[in-house]
Amino acid sequence: MRIFTLPEAPHSTLGQIEKELSENLMGFLKENIVAVEKPLTEIEKDFQAHQVPASPSFVSDYAEQMMQTLVAHSVHTSAPSFIGHMTSALPYFVLPLSKMMVGLNQNLVKIETSKAFTPLERQVLGMMHHLVYGQSDSFYNNWMHSASHSLGAFCSGGTVANITALWIARNRVLQASGDFKGIAASGLMAGLRHYGYDDLAILVSTRGHYSLGKSADLLGIGRDNIVSIPCSDDNKVDVDKMRQAAEQLAAKNIKVMAIVGVAGTTETGNIDPLNELADLAHTLGCHFHVDAAWGGASLLSNKYRYLLAGIERADSITIDAHKQMYVPMGAGMVLFKDPEFANAIKHHAEYILRKGSKDLGSQTLEGSRPGMAMLVHACLQVIGRDGYEILINNSLEKARYFAELIKQQGDFQLVSAPELCLLTYRYVPAQVQALLTHAVKHDDLELVTQINQLLDGLTKFVQKRQREQGKSFVSRTRITPDNNLGLTSVVFRVVLANPLTGHDILQQVLAEQREIAQQDALFLPQLLALS
Amino acid sequence: MRIFTLPEAPHSTLGQIEKELSENLMGFLKENIVAVEKPLTEIEKDFQAHQVPASPSFVSDYAEQMMQTLVAHSVHTSAPSFIGHMTSALPYFVLPLSKMMVGLNQNLVKIETSKAFTPLERQVLGMMHHLVYGQSDSFYNNWMHSASHSLGAFCSGGTVANITALWIARNRVLQASGDFKGIAASGLMAGLRHYGYDDLAILVSTRGHYSLGKSADLLGIGRDNIVSIPCSDDNKVDVDKMRQAAEQLAAKNIKVMAIVGVAGTTETGNIDPLNELADLAHTLGCHFHVDAAWGGASLLSNKYRYLLAGIERADSITIDAHKQMYVPMGAGMVLFKDPEFANAIKHHAEYILRKGSKDLGSQTLEGSRPGMAMLVHACLQVIGRDGYEILINNSLEKARYFAELIKQQGDFQLVSAPELCLLTYRYVPAQVQALLTHAVKHDDLELVTQINQLLDGLTKFVQKRQREQGKSFVSRTRITPDNNLGLTSVVFRVVLANPLTGHDILQQVLAEQREIAQQDALFLPQLLALS
Repeated sequence: MRIFTLPEAPHSTLGQIEKELSENLMGFLKENIVAVEKPLTEIEKDFQAHQVPASPSFVSDYAEQMMQTLVAHSVHTSAPSFIGHMTSALPYFVLPLSKMMVGLNQNLVKIETSKAFTPLERQVLGMMHHLVYGQSDSFYNNWMHSASHSLGAFCSGGTVANITALWIARNRVLQASGDFKGIAASGLMAGLRHYGYDDLAILVSTRGHYSLGKSADLLGIGRDNIVSIPCSDDNKVDVDKMRQAAEQLAAKNIKVMAIVGVAGTTETGNIDPLNELADLAHTLGCHFHVDAAWGGASLLSNKYRYLLAGIERADSITIDAHKQMYVPMGAGMVLFKDPEFANAIKHHAEYILRKGSKDLGSQTLEGSRPGMAMLVHACLQVIGRDGYEILINNSLEKARYFAELIKQQGDFQLVSAPELCLLTYRYVPAQVQALLTHAVKHDDLELVTQINQLLDGLTKFVQKRQREQGKSFVSRTRITPDNNLGLTSVVFRVVLANPLTGHDILQQVLAEQREIAQQDALFLPQLLALS
Repeated sequence: MRIFTLPEAPHSTLGQIEKELSENLMGFLKENIVAVEKPLTEIEKDFQAHQVPASPSFVSDYAEQMMQTLVAHSVHTSAPSFIGHMTSALPYFVLPLSKMMVGLNQNLVKIETSKAFTPLERQVLGMMHHLVYGQSDSFYNNWMHSASHSLGAFCSGGTVANITALWIARNRVLQASGDFKGIAASGLMAGLRHYGYDDLAILVSTRGHYSLGKSADLLGIGRDNIVSIPCSDDNKVDVDKMRQAAEQLAAKNIKVMAIVGVAGTTETGNIDPLNELADLAHTLGCHFHVDAAWGGASLLSNKYRYLLAGIERADSITIDAHKQMYVPMGAGMVLFKDPEFANAIKHHAEYILRKGSKDLGSQTLEGSRPGMAMLVHACLQVIGRDGYEILINNSLEKARYFAELIKQQGDFQLVSAPELCLLTYRYVPAQVQALLTHAVKHDDLELVTQINQLLDGLTKFVQKRQREQGKSFVSRTRITPDNNLGLTSVVFRVVLANPLTGHDILQQVLAEQREIAQQDALFLPQLLALS
């Protein structure tokens, strides 16, 4: 009973840890997260017990143990030199606010357990909707707090947002008509039979996020019915090829239920030609979804929002606040152009979500969920448009700087230039670059393949070793560079969303990579021997 | 930039709020949450702006504004007299730990952004798996940290857990065979064609949670293919009727892909006969899922775990840690009997979730998600089996006390007795009870209907007024009481999981309800006039 009634004393172990963490988060993380990588198999040894312990533990013992086993071996995602994934430093005020959120322990599924959090979440969705669609005052006055409408759905992240959007698209394509009660009631099989389609398909570029395949599996459409459309050289979908694919599917009596545009691909950060996709969706009469999980935050920059032109024509849009909006993990959103859309997945129950209620849970995939919208609300208010303008512009301009820096080196190759704040590159010694260019020019597939394989090995080696050294972290992925005879390559991938990442850190990252590459005794000698 | 580098000063507004909240959470909530209900339409007025503000705000101004508009009008879910939903008081140590979790900002989708959090989450799943299935040491040594196996999946809540379980069940029924690549790749239509089924169905009692209908919609099976099986008088599924339904479906060439047992129904807290259901699933050769989102925590009581006998025969089990395990909102789990099950929904991507990695994201519905497993880990360790034994037993025994108390009153009717710590009842004046019993005995449907309708009105009136008065909160639902000629009735619903709820509070709740009922000028006079 005491654990429910006696607060942690300020001088308790946990109290001390909290104090340190609150007063100097960066310092706390820097001091407590061990930089040098410990192998996962070693870390696992601390998490072997598989029985709930019989006796209670003292909070202070537990806290101390967790500092050594968990915190020490977690990842310093907000370090300025951790530029490999879409995480960033967090504004300080989100820490006490999170504690308040947890202490209030609201459940957003229904008003009875969330009250003012419900209009707050609807306001956040309204503000994000306005950011994209910029509808009139009367539009928001009418729909933002309407019981039978939704401007979007809040969720744990982009994957659930994408699933929700495609779920709605699917249910609208096979909606009730005549005797048919609709797919939601009668299922996919009955829906296809009623409408006389042989199958459904979703079109998206080869750069689409893996959650789209997952959605297709979950929704019963099947991963193979996510039709991958090739990109033009700049990692943007080739809309002509998409049109052709749609025609081929129509000839096979397969209904395109949605096309998906990507606004900031996960691997290269590029943005599909959204206006052309909107035109195509209009021609096909299908749902147009834009996955802007990562890139959507760029709309907060008046200077660069033109890069996403056409996004306002999307029927639905995914945006993650925990990516470039500086909100902690667990804050995704899907926005709906038409406030009626979400009714395609509406559900009710006796004890909650009664008809006519404003319970948010009647139109979300998730059920019980926390009041994370509060942290998005806080960031939008405290940072404001002006603050985001600076943050977003700095990120984009930092990426342009880094791209220039890479180009200036004789032994690095920029593979994809940054359209937003994401770019890819690899280490290629100068003489190997010359040889590769020559081989590509002469269509020497065998030699290009050989060089490419060795470079892949070298890139993986450098990425892994750099991570293990613990000073900085870039991620890696596999894409198809221009002028590579269509071969895919392993590349370094960098996301520059952390406002604390300075130019000096970027210079150090390259210097460290060069140093590691030159230590490689396996791939580098073979590469040099070829040249 | 300052918001990323300068911590909140202890004397800032937010610092003060945090201090108060940390030192005396119950007091903070009691003082700051306004007890008397403000209409939602009034609250909404504070959340009307639909544009992201142009200028940044001071954190202190924002914090003050939120105290007045948000915190003041949130719900005191942890109040001892808030006994209407499945929320409870929280142990104090989860507050500083949550702050640590947010500060670390790990993303559990992949090891590169979560490192030690990955084995920690696997350990939590292992402990919960052991709690249910109690497999051998070597079982856990082999599978708990295996890259190609999962003992369960962590998620935001019971809805996602149920969806995940049924997704796996569906994909296993229509798995790859011969030329058929499996439903995950080829879709539901192709799967049904390949196996020659006309449709799929899921069987569950009429008391099944609404998330099952949502799952059926999402998975393309259709809500109407969730076949609702009547309960026997005690809100437990009638297994004979389920067997008959399965036979009828088989005759129509509809494959039963799963049967679902409920271990703690949301509305009455009853537990289905799990052993009989396991036998039936064995006969039908189908997946057996148990939705123990709320009741599963009772397994932590050695004294009462026999109530869930047979749960260890389930193929998959949903348990929410944010219900009776005293963890804050956002901690759901699904457990798998067979560590191979989750491979039915496995997916990979180039830049993460590479084959052979231990990334948790390759077998979860969600993508990016926070390290909530840490809070479950903390509660399991700090509270321990002995601590949970006391907490769970107290809850169950308190519910039995409350049931007795209700029975002792002349003017209350216990509608469903507590099997776990949930019960339902209604206010029925003594003379109305006598009349109702008489009418039921003589099968006077007209009179019973008339009384029932008036009682429904009275129950709704009392529940709403009591909530508005703000001293205590019980929820309401609609169920079919025994001896009511099959008519459904509105009832009060009470969940007694909060360790701080004393007998005195329960007595006050009844006294307050009686007082409100006697003020009713619409239904009560009509009821009394009948008698």
